[in-house]
Amino acid sequence: MTLLIVGTIGLDTIETPFGKKPDILGGSVIYAGTSASFFAKSALVGVAGEDFPKEHLEFLKSKDIDTSGIQILPGQTFRWSGYYEYDMNQAHTRDTRLNLYTSFDPKVPDHLKKAEYVFLANLDPDLQLKVLDQLESPKFVAMDTMNFWIENKRDKLIEVIKRADLVLMNDGEIRQFMETPNIPQAARKLRQLGAKAVIVKKGEHGALLFNDGEHFAAPSYPQEELKDPTGAGDTFAGGLMGYLAKTRDVTEANIRQAIVVGSVMASFNVEDFSLERMRRLTQKEIHDRFAEFKNFSEFSALAK
Amino acid sequence: MTLLIVGTIGLDTIETPFGKKPDILGGSVIYAGTSASFFAKSALVGVAGEDFPKEHLEFLKSKDIDTSGIQILPGQTFRWSGYYEYDMNQAHTRDTRLNLYTSFDPKVPDHLKKAEYVFLANLDPDLQLKVLDQLESPKFVAMDTMNFWIENKRDKLIEVIKRADLVLMNDGEIRQFMETPNIPQAARKLRQLGAKAVIVKKGEHGALLFNDGEHFAAPSYPQEELKDPTGAGDTFAGGLMGYLAKTRDVTEANIRQAIVVGSVMASFNVEDFSLERMRRLTQKEIHDRFAEFKNFSEFSALAK
Repeated sequence: MTLLIVGTIGLDTIETPFGKKPDILGGSVIYAGTSASFFAKSALVGVAGEDFPKEHLEFLKSKDIDTSGIQILPGQTFRWSGYYEYDMNQAHTRDTRLNLYTSFDPKVPDHLKKAEYVFLANLDPDLQLKVLDQLESPKFVAMDTMNFWIENKRDKLIEVIKRADLVLMNDGEIRQFMETPNIPQAARKLRQLGAKAVIVKKGEHGALLFNDGEHFAAPSYPQEELKDPTGAGDTFAGGLMGYLAKTRDVTEANIRQAIVVGSVMASFNVEDFSLERMRRLTQKEIHDRFAEFKNFSEFSALAK
Repeated sequence: MTLLIVGTIGLDTIETPFGKKPDILGGSVIYAGTSASFFAKSALVGVAGEDFPKEHLEFLKSKDIDTSGIQILPGQTFRWSGYYEYDMNQAHTRDTRLNLYTSFDPKVPDHLKKAEYVFLANLDPDLQLKVLDQLESPKFVAMDTMNFWIENKRDKLIEVIKRADLVLMNDGEIRQFMETPNIPQAARKLRQLGAKAVIVKKGEHGALLFNDGEHFAAPSYPQEELKDPTGAGDTFAGGLMGYLAKTRDVTEANIRQAIVVGSVMASFNVEDFSLERMRRLTQKEIHDRFAEFKNFSEFSALAK
């Protein structure tokens, strides 16, 4: 089953305590799409400029990713420049240049309009809606966002949230959006606003799922090889949605597994810059790390 | 099996967004001992002044707690005054008066010198050692500390750590102590320094265990009724150690269960000020919440 993903295609300049890398492959749709490709066919919608290196498109094709929804237009590719300090918990933006994304008009190719599994990665909510409107019968739509849209396009954002089946936000975003420091309360408020299931991404502290009367806490990986956290959230979402698209099962139990799959993928991605770790990642490594996650979250029931 | 606990007996003045309470019962040995009493006989070592209300001692006795190691001396009881802001993640100290703890000479009563399970709650490492030296054959010793001792008594603290079987610290403390923002790296360094097992308490993000080649991530409770976080860490440790003393089993599997028991106890304690929630807590509530913890951390293995 194909997973349709819309988001940014970017060239990032990133500095972490482990080095500085100029103009490396990045963007939400790239991270999510690559991660998803380990489980399902992923199809990307986005825009890049004529300056976008052809080798990056070749890389996507090598992962059997459908790039027919990627527009290559005259102009400059989206660029983000940022750095992480010693603790690497937060990205600090030096510069964001939307470039071609300022006038981006997403077009879903005809053969993808029947897509059932959809991930609307962080993007202007108006563009997320434009993509949704082109789809015939989406079965399971997940969406992500960021503080900029929470502050500047709140109403449109809520419209997307109401049409999605799963809302992904990081802990800082949901606290800001729902105006409470208490994450479970924030998730409750977001669900009252119309969100169905809510996943809160907490970086080094794992992820939480708030669903109908259900709660799931996925552990984080005890990551000692953290080199570059860029793209962790999109890699998480891509793995999660790729797994759901592969298994075609959106029961609570399967969403739980999918969250751990997403956590596994993100735990690998942060071990190197850009998509470098994804390039050499194997299915065996994914299975082995999933088993580790399972092992370190297990405990026995209490005796009566 | 008796659990011996040494720590502070205090009268706290606490302000949270839910109210201000002057001179309420507190202190590490009180929180830990009360929590442990739900599982094992707990015996407390500490000091209080003649101003310490008799009703508090009556409360401890009502929990079948051995108070023979509590010295009541002329002078003032330890006092801590602090407040929590809106997000309640961090305690802000207004005033600490050690009072009788400045000259505290802990005495373990003869009948408790054979204690096998011991919790050295946060206290001057010299006093923690003084207690250890009075014990005949401790089988399992856990210890806690705080930033003040990390900064001012590093060498003595390391001596306690080396003699303990389990070191408890919160995330901020272990990062500061081991001079790295990466928790798994910090835990590794602490173990290289001589700690056997290490538990990192992360408050709203749960707790982590680092043991010989093993890692366990306990989920946190999706707590919406947070009224006063004071004593959460000691309540956690008391539940954990009380459960180990009750079961007399310090295998990895049982320590995992004990960590969840501790998490359950802490999740109740923060629902009200001081020990109020502990006063009305039932065994059934503990069992039910443990089952909730189990439910929201479960997921299935990946298919081959």
